[in-house]
Amino acid sequence: MQNEVRIVGTARLEAAVRAALEAAGADAPSVAATTRAVMHASRHGVDSHGVRLVPHYCKVLRGGRVNPTPAMTLRRTSPAAFSLDADDGLGHGAAYRAMEVACEAAGEVGIAAVGIHRSSHFGAAGAYALAGAEAGRVALAMANSDSVVALHEGAQPFHGTNPFAAGVPVAGTGAGARPWLLDMATSSVPLNRVYLYRALGLALPADVAVDAGGAMTADPHAAAMLMPAGGSQFGFKGAALGGLMTILSAVLTGATADPFVIPMDGEEIATPRNIGHFVIAIDPAFFGGAETFQSALSAYLAALRGSTPREGGTVMAPGDREWAVERQRACDGIPVDLATADALGL
Amino acid sequence: MQNEVRIVGTARLEAAVRAALEAAGADAPSVAATTRAVMHASRHGVDSHGVRLVPHYCKVLRGGRVNPTPAMTLRRTSPAAFSLDADDGLGHGAAYRAMEVACEAAGEVGIAAVGIHRSSHFGAAGAYALAGAEAGRVALAMANSDSVVALHEGAQPFHGTNPFAAGVPVAGTGAGARPWLLDMATSSVPLNRVYLYRALGLALPADVAVDAGGAMTADPHAAAMLMPAGGSQFGFKGAALGGLMTILSAVLTGATADPFVIPMDGEEIATPRNIGHFVIAIDPAFFGGAETFQSALSAYLAALRGSTPREGGTVMAPGDREWAVERQRACDGIPVDLATADALGL
Repeated sequence: MQNEVRIVGTARLEAAVRAALEAAGADAPSVAATTRAVMHASRHGVDSHGVRLVPHYCKVLRGGRVNPTPAMTLRRTSPAAFSLDADDGLGHGAAYRAMEVACEAAGEVGIAAVGIHRSSHFGAAGAYALAGAEAGRVALAMANSDSVVALHEGAQPFHGTNPFAAGVPVAGTGAGARPWLLDMATSSVPLNRVYLYRALGLALPADVAVDAGGAMTADPHAAAMLMPAGGSQFGFKGAALGGLMTILSAVLTGATADPFVIPMDGEEIATPRNIGHFVIAIDPAFFGGAETFQSALSAYLAALRGSTPREGGTVMAPGDREWAVERQRACDGIPVDLATADALGL
Repeated sequence: MQNEVRIVGTARLEAAVRAALEAAGADAPSVAATTRAVMHASRHGVDSHGVRLVPHYCKVLRGGRVNPTPAMTLRRTSPAAFSLDADDGLGHGAAYRAMEVACEAAGEVGIAAVGIHRSSHFGAAGAYALAGAEAGRVALAMANSDSVVALHEGAQPFHGTNPFAAGVPVAGTGAGARPWLLDMATSSVPLNRVYLYRALGLALPADVAVDAGGAMTADPHAAAMLMPAGGSQFGFKGAALGGLMTILSAVLTGATADPFVIPMDGEEIATPRNIGHFVIAIDPAFFGGAETFQSALSAYLAALRGSTPREGGTVMAPGDREWAVERQRACDGIPVDLATADALGL
């Protein structure tokens, strides 16, 4: 997604991220969680949510929006339900903690959920779904965010890009045994993609953005907001999914709903934004049974990966593209855009 | 969606549905649940999943695929998790029962889920999400089905149209107080829509169907399968969501995954299909609190309904269209296609 990049080895990049966050005042748990989350994204090719965000996180840590030394409060309201007050810290630590708690409780009662409020941007939702899958759970993670997406037939930014991620644990070894992993925005594309097209002077694909009047536009300079996933024809589905992420992440948890959230990229960086997240973990042992689950999943994934592609196409399970990128970047290094590389001293 | 229709009053239509299912041998609980579900769909304008399906249900009840007198077995594996064996009965009874059980358990522990196996077609997923919302829960309902949808870049029917529905309880009175309700296929459109275009001799919209080689086609006669929601550009999102419905509804529960399911509309109607469903109910009281939830939801929905539409457009909350159709049809009657009307003796 970047015009020019610098290729950096994983270990060196991770050390630079850690140092930048420490220099901005983040405490050890915050540094560890945020580094883990942005490196997840950068290692798997989700560059919009990778190390590119670190200078932003440092800015808001210094500005007062985000608490560098949060004291999170976890309240267990039942064997299966939790409310986590993130104390305005970086969202990554709260989301990893919530997923860990949900996975442990799901092992006791089959399904468990954690609602998180007083949080902030948590990066790539897939980081937490993957953590849940690696703990043996079917794991769902979502968040709300500030208004940048039009409603279906709307002419006003309303929902955030509100991501939804799901991870599914796959037993065994080998490339096919990595988790099934979905990480999607409920908007057409990330906002960052529009900025990139603007910088490159290219026309946007159809069904990605609308102008200030709500009309579809291919001109990245005229683009005033994103379209919901599904575009002009099926955008009611994307808008409704985006709304469901808001309802679960914010309305249910006590966080602030999208239209009332301080803009992420605005000038006001001294006030906490009260972003919300919601995670669910499910232990297959409590439904059809763990063995049934793994044998059925293997057969399903084998059928999927073996199904006929269209000419010139490739059929993949969700996550397969990410594991391929991960293998490649582990050898070749991670591309970092020049502005971020400079900011991180790379 | 029908070329020619007969308008029938709600009470008369409901009586005819009930009589047809009774004549096909269904026991009283099955008749009650299936009638409630198909009338939900027909009253709210979801005609593809309404009374149109009753002749099909009667055929498979008589053919042996569906058990007219199921003895369902509910197993509670924890305070929050259940496995329901539907004994090959009509899916509607199993799904309503599962949602009822999940809602009650969510009142005890905040979140609860029921995995259902050995079930059959359950009609409109929104019927169960609505039932959950009316019981005061945030309610999710989903199912898998037989292969009619291409994977992203695929040239083979793989997933079913695998619906996902969500209902959110809205307190208060008046039209705005009806639940927030999403009921979506993870395919582009229902398969039935393609058949309709074929009958009408019309070209399909873009991004709806592909031919036997996986190439997009507007010719309804050449259409061999549906595209996933999102179309050619964003179909990887719809395909992944369809897959998640399969994983939760079938892989997790012990039901049969889509590529291995006997076709709904095939000639084999003597063998049960082992379709699966999954429902989740969430009680807001266990997260941010019931009062916080309702006041935040009211503010969110007021902002949504008050937001600026594009010229000539309308901004609605999910479900608003359905409540409008319901009001109209309660006065004017329900349109029934002639083949169904004849089959039901109307």
